[in-house]
Amino acid sequence: MEIIKFKTEGLAQLSYLIIDKETAAVIDPRREAKIYYDKAKEQGASIKYIFETHRNEDFVTGSRELQRHCGAQILHGEGLDFEFGRFVKDNENFILDEICFQVLCTPGHTPESISLALYPTRESEQALAVFTGDSLFVNDVGRTDFFPDKRNEYAEMLYDSLHQKILPLGDEVVLYPAHGAGSVCGGKIADREISTLGFEKKHNPMLQLSKDEFIKQKANETHQKPPYFKEMEKINLKGSDTALINYQHTKNISREDLKKDFNKLQIIDVRSSEAFLGCHIPGSLSIPQGMLSAYAGYFISYDQPIVLVTDTEQEEEQAKAALVNLGYDNILGALAGGISAWEVSGESLASVRMLDVNHIQNEKSSSTLLDIRKPNEWDEGIIKNARTIFLGDLLKNLNEFSKDEHLITYCGSGKRATIAASLLQAHDFKNVSVFMGSMQAYQNKKAS
Amino acid sequence: MEIIKFKTEGLAQLSYLIIDKETAAVIDPRREAKIYYDKAKEQGASIKYIFETHRNEDFVTGSRELQRHCGAQILHGEGLDFEFGRFVKDNENFILDEICFQVLCTPGHTPESISLALYPTRESEQALAVFTGDSLFVNDVGRTDFFPDKRNEYAEMLYDSLHQKILPLGDEVVLYPAHGAGSVCGGKIADREISTLGFEKKHNPMLQLSKDEFIKQKANETHQKPPYFKEMEKINLKGSDTALINYQHTKNISREDLKKDFNKLQIIDVRSSEAFLGCHIPGSLSIPQGMLSAYAGYFISYDQPIVLVTDTEQEEEQAKAALVNLGYDNILGALAGGISAWEVSGESLASVRMLDVNHIQNEKSSSTLLDIRKPNEWDEGIIKNARTIFLGDLLKNLNEFSKDEHLITYCGSGKRATIAASLLQAHDFKNVSVFMGSMQAYQNKKAS
Amino acid sequence: MEIIKFKTEGLAQLSYLIIDKETAAVIDPRREAKIYYDKAKEQGASIKYIFETHRNEDFVTGSRELQRHCGAQILHGEGLDFEFGRFVKDNENFILDEICFQVLCTPGHTPESISLALYPTRESEQALAVFTGDSLFVNDVGRTDFFPDKRNEYAEMLYDSLHQKILPLGDEVVLYPAHGAGSVCGGKIADREISTLGFEKKHNPMLQLSKDEFIKQKANETHQKPPYFKEMEKINLKGSDTALINYQHTKNISREDLKKDFNKLQIIDVRSSEAFLGCHIPGSLSIPQGMLSAYAGYFISYDQPIVLVTDTEQEEEQAKAALVNLGYDNILGALAGGISAWEVSGESLASVRMLDVNHIQNEKSSSTLLDIRKPNEWDEGIIKNARTIFLGDLLKNLNEFSKDEHLITYCGSGKRATIAASLLQAHDFKNVSVFMGSMQAYQNKKAS
Amino acid sequence: MEIIKFKTEGLAQLSYLIIDKETAAVIDPRREAKIYYDKAKEQGASIKYIFETHRNEDFVTGSRELQRHCGAQILHGEGLDFEFGRFVKDNENFILDEICFQVLCTPGHTPESISLALYPTRESEQALAVFTGDSLFVNDVGRTDFFPDKRNEYAEMLYDSLHQKILPLGDEVVLYPAHGAGSVCGGKIADREISTLGFEKKHNPMLQLSKDEFIKQKANETHQKPPYFKEMEKINLKGSDTALINYQHTKNISREDLKKDFNKLQIIDVRSSEAFLGCHIPGSLSIPQGMLSAYAGYFISYDQPIVLVTDTEQEEEQAKAALVNLGYDNILGALAGGISAWEVSGESLASVRMLDVNHIQNEKSSSTLLDIRKPNEWDEGIIKNARTIFLGDLLKNLNEFSKDEHLITYCGSGKRATIAASLLQAHDFKNVSVFMGSMQAYQNKKAS
Repeated sequence: MEIIKFKTEGLAQLSYLIIDKETAAVIDPRREAKIYYDKAKEQGASIKYIFETHRNEDFVTGSRELQRHCGAQILHGEGLDFEFGRFVKDNENFILDEICFQVLCTPGHTPESISLALYPTRESEQALAVFTGDSLFVNDVGRTDFFPDKRNEYAEMLYDSLHQKILPLGDEVVLYPAHGAGSVCGGKIADREISTLGFEKKHNPMLQLSKDEFIKQKANETHQKPPYFKEMEKINLKGSDTALINYQHTKNISREDLKKDFNKLQIIDVRSSEAFLGCHIPGSLSIPQGMLSAYAGYFISYDQPIVLVTDTEQEEEQAKAALVNLGYDNILGALAGGISAWEVSGESLASVRMLDVNHIQNEKSSSTLLDIRKPNEWDEGIIKNARTIFLGDLLKNLNEFSKDEHLITYCGSGKRATIAASLLQAHDFKNVSVFMGSMQAYQNKKAS
Repeated sequence: MEIIKFKTEGLAQLSYLIIDKETAAVIDPRREAKIYYDKAKEQGASIKYIFETHRNEDFVTGSRELQRHCGAQILHGEGLDFEFGRFVKDNENFILDEICFQVLCTPGHTPESISLALYPTRESEQALAVFTGDSLFVNDVGRTDFFPDKRNEYAEMLYDSLHQKILPLGDEVVLYPAHGAGSVCGGKIADREISTLGFEKKHNPMLQLSKDEFIKQKANETHQKPPYFKEMEKINLKGSDTALINYQHTKNISREDLKKDFNKLQIIDVRSSEAFLGCHIPGSLSIPQGMLSAYAGYFISYDQPIVLVTDTEQEEEQAKAALVNLGYDNILGALAGGISAWEVSGESLASVRMLDVNHIQNEKSSSTLLDIRKPNEWDEGIIKNARTIFLGDLLKNLNEFSKDEHLITYCGSGKRATIAASLLQAHDFKNVSVFMGSMQAYQNKKAS
Repeated sequence: MEIIKFKTEGLAQLSYLIIDKETAAVIDPRREAKIYYDKAKEQGASIKYIFETHRNEDFVTGSRELQRHCGAQILHGEGLDFEFGRFVKDNENFILDEICFQVLCTPGHTPESISLALYPTRESEQALAVFTGDSLFVNDVGRTDFFPDKRNEYAEMLYDSLHQKILPLGDEVVLYPAHGAGSVCGGKIADREISTLGFEKKHNPMLQLSKDEFIKQKANETHQKPPYFKEMEKINLKGSDTALINYQHTKNISREDLKKDFNKLQIIDVRSSEAFLGCHIPGSLSIPQGMLSAYAGYFISYDQPIVLVTDTEQEEEQAKAALVNLGYDNILGALAGGISAWEVSGESLASVRMLDVNHIQNEKSSSTLLDIRKPNEWDEGIIKNARTIFLGDLLKNLNEFSKDEHLITYCGSGKRATIAASLLQAHDFKNVSVFMGSMQAYQNKKAS
Repeated sequence: MEIIKFKTEGLAQLSYLIIDKETAAVIDPRREAKIYYDKAKEQGASIKYIFETHRNEDFVTGSRELQRHCGAQILHGEGLDFEFGRFVKDNENFILDEICFQVLCTPGHTPESISLALYPTRESEQALAVFTGDSLFVNDVGRTDFFPDKRNEYAEMLYDSLHQKILPLGDEVVLYPAHGAGSVCGGKIADREISTLGFEKKHNPMLQLSKDEFIKQKANETHQKPPYFKEMEKINLKGSDTALINYQHTKNISREDLKKDFNKLQIIDVRSSEAFLGCHIPGSLSIPQGMLSAYAGYFISYDQPIVLVTDTEQEEEQAKAALVNLGYDNILGALAGGISAWEVSGESLASVRMLDVNHIQNEKSSSTLLDIRKPNEWDEGIIKNARTIFLGDLLKNLNEFSKDEHLITYCGSGKRATIAASLLQAHDFKNVSVFMGSMQAYQNKKAS
């Protein structure tokens, strides 16, 4: 028996392929699902079950796509109106060759959340591992804010699921959650992808609380909910139908075609932040490839066709994979010849002024410093006099600034600050700079 | 029988693996030579002969490295003091399984230049193909300026080699030269990698000339001779000894180590031109990965350790391959964490101002426009009032400019202009801009 | 400009991708056509034209599949009722970036056969290369036996096409045919994949003949026409509709499922000949993976589901690719666990007795030696007293033998002999042996 | 923090790469050690420590090879005279970025065996995981028979190491052993590669015993000790010096060269068992590629040059990797053209008669059935009247049989039986058959 973990960078989403001799199961597949099929096949196994531990909000699940490849059964908990797959019951067993998955209904994150306890055989009384979905993470627990009117109720459900269903499996049970550090589905997930129920019971701060404390704390938590979550919820209940068919048919877009349809398109520049600062197509949006999973959902629409600006074939493929994973089937293609083709065309070009920490220390008085990090990051300190607006809220607050004001954006490193700068430039702010290195450079400079 | 062509981008160098059932030959291997061995092995063949058509000046040949892998015999023409391999005679035959290579001594580019006529069998009287090294290219012929005192003599030798040795093989013979378009070894090589002796006889402008015309024209030609050619000539006569051993042991250099040894190191930024414009380490030199083969030899020393700044693992590997191909065994490694690691360190950062064609049309009066292209490019027109200094000569002419002057560099597209800007900044010029899009943008704008 | 050749092993079919800066054309794509799209994209080019030089008989063309990926135009000659693409005229020009394809109507192999002359630019008067489809090969010419009633007429058409259309392009024109050595589309194609019109004019035996001699010789030629050619002709006129969708969804078949549906299935053992001799599933057919392209069409039906027996994942993928290329959309999957799974099941197993050349020399009197090679191979000598039946005709002639007779099959090496043995065993011949090494071993033994 | 497991098939040896931001450690690297370096580099990390949990007997460790690539420190426990690396102390700490390895001296398997407890930070009091080397496995414990005179003493040491050092780390600690199911280093290792100390404490049969029972049981255990273990012990104390240099320079051996040096060579046929049965070179030894790690050490000498017979390039590479891992630096190469080249040469060929379960049930009386499995497999039943000789002891016992006797070998599936048959044939036994499917087929047939 082997457990293979797949990590989707950006989302920090974890999915699992469990192979038991000639049969296998997949838990929470991502949309590009052929990877599970291929891996199982390589090991000589057929996938029999696809479990969804909960209705995902942060990506399009690949259950349907995977089912097309291998014909496996899709299974999820009761409590939401899934239009595909079948529902499972509490304590229901699913057997591969020898190992047995037992369903635990663990509502709290969502009403139909399940966990899956893995036993060596059907007869074992001792679980070996548990797949907890978004109920229990390493060092944190799941969000309970998706039903704003019922925050207390859901927090209480989660508390009970954790303490009455999951932890009783035993200290020696290995934990396999659905997210790692960096996910928006949990703010304090630790950066070590290994734990046990015993370790969490002792060290996970959320498991040290009484029921009342737990409910109170969960009720007060604030989490980001990027606008695309709504789209994900819909797709994941209905089942993604068109699969990846469109994805395979993107084109190279010539600069002439780009110019012709310029206003109908979303031009997404997935090159590095530095390359965007150096030179970009006026009006384009900077989201470096590795940040698409986390930020595309805030700024990219599902309707208008998307054209990518990339440096390499590989970058383009990864960008498309990330977008498809978020349900974007409106990718038209990439600019043929990349940014170079645009540069030599004789069309206008734009850049963003780059400032380092020395500039900031000297010049900040005459400018507006804009801290676009998350609220919980502000808690650990901001630069004096900086204005704070979370990147995801920036577009709603543009009228707070004048178009000619010198705006200097910063974040942790400069990458999100560059996204912010691209948004500001696209909305006609003329005088935008990025503080490269941002908060880390600021603190390192102070420390030295 | 199969002929497999390998193209080294940047140098536009062409090498060939010829497989005849179970035996094979390689012509002019590049330094990373395991690729020939692997390909031959994949097809079930053993390499028997390694031909060097001439002593190469623009890269380190891989003959010795390849010999380590497969034990084949290295062969070259007489006339230079090679310290490895064995010499071949005019008309000497080398047989694989059935096919036969016949040596043609074709001096002119270098004294020991040979061509290899390929016959279907030993008995054939009709050649099928000819490998001409640097004697005959598609639409051009080889340089004859490597022995400046004997230009006429070498031009005459080349004329005779072409007209008395190569062309008599017959119109129907397929041509396989050692360089394609873009090489510094021939200025007018056509951008189609397919030709025959008959086609060249009719259409190659250099083959339409009388002997006198030919000698006169060759004597008057000017070609670039990057400084590293001298190093290549030495290595390629002696035989590269250390092989690729050092190459495999480069390290990730931490930003602390980089800072510590800053002045002892050559920091080569191989990211895209745009990324360099956006943000770079002060003092670093911009040579984008794809341009290393063509420009490293002008600016990078063989003595001082090299540290690369790259965006991706793949870019790093390709950069190292290109440098190793030019004989750079002094690569220390790449900056761990790339430019981001430096950005967040709190150290100083630099950028270059980017100007587009609109800026140039409006602002050029108060600034110095610097055209750093090659002389033959200037012949096709420059921007009014621009100063012309070939990129390779820039460092020798820095005293022509004041450190505070606004210098705007341009080339064909902006990439070489960015190299120039990095050189200027590294020599304390404070006010340097790059005209992105450069001459192409200028002409496209005018045309529209 | 670059010409990239793709060779489909087994069929020895050659297709070409021609890239000219940002546009490209494909000639005679195979069914797995994404490969052309990917390669063009990798080089930054978009495919604009897909040429079919003729209606192919030996594989399903990938024009439609490729069109789905890139939207290019499909083009073929007039004279057959294609239900897709558009027809081209004699002398019609198709331009990429600079290079130009000119259509030459060259009927003879089929009525609508075209060749494509490639010129460096639209204005050139001198062709650089010609893509001749099945009209002219290296050392041979195309078949003219597809319309048996009109053999003379088609031979004459081909003669005129060769001498009035193709050869006049000039000696210096490089030849790119649609098949290499080993194809059933030409018996004497030379094993060197490089030639020019000038070389062929001098050395191709079919181009040395007068018109009368040519017609006479072509009329007397015999070629194999595997039964699946009929299916290919239909599909290639109509256009393959279902594309590769089914191909991607084959399953691992458990030995239980295999047993259950045993009589409804075609079990194709694609392992090596030796492995089949050693142990196989009774009733299964041996066609080693590398021989599928050449022999599947004789023995595998398009209706009954196919189950593969393979050793490795890679072998399975290659086998499926070969079958899909021949239009087999009825592949159910591969036996899970391979032959080992069947061996340990307790079911019956079969083997074939292997004889070497010593056995043959001593024992042949009491047995029937069966030479199953092609008629033209028999012409070069057979083993004394051997019976000759071409492998493709074996099933029609089974009643010539008794079920208990000791039949020893042989071919050139033993591989086709093993296919023959598997057919005989599957038809209840009890006493079948394979002479391994076959004719080659026989001759080598004699020579030693 | 990420833990990446590498499994060497055949040996079921597990090694680990632990990455903690920019630094990493490797535990028990295999000889082909560049894989760890590459993986770490891909993730942006440098390897700082290489731990050897014990002197390995079943493969050549890659510590020295890996050190050549990355310069890391090699560390092992005290008690054996290692000629490389440095010794560690009980409770010594090794810190990466944040995580901390604490050394536990856990003698018993060998005198210098160590385990490594992994803590989230230096300050943590709670271990997260433990790397136990050959001390504790999933469902089993390490062997204590390497010092035959001191079996009781070593068993007692191991008991104390388990109960006083490892288990006290806590139930919630995740277990990472050095072997999985199938290793000769533990007979009853479970086929699930996941466990915790808590799970083992409850379910590992060896942890349920009292100290006296434990010692008694360990003292009575019998384990295989293949002859090559002695060679491994020597190499692993001294440090493998020549690294992988020879490995990269194997050649294609022509059949002429093979014939010429036939008697000086070890011909190892790594094709499938079935292919060996079907046709092989007389005198060659069958060890299918996947079985080399487990069986090469019994039958292949370190002195005589090795020639491989393989079907594919990939099979050849994997076979060489497996042999190099066992310290075989005497691989000359592979037969060019594979078995086919030999078959057509006119030389003698051999095969082995294959029998299925029906034959066995009917014919066994007149033949000698030979069960060559391991003693512990015999305990679960043998076929009536079968003779039992463990495969590893076969060569010592050949005089028990007559050369003309019909010997039928069997094992679990037929694969080891084929190895046995090849040994018998190579020692002039004329009448050898293999029972394909073997014990599994026998039992499945009975059950049906």
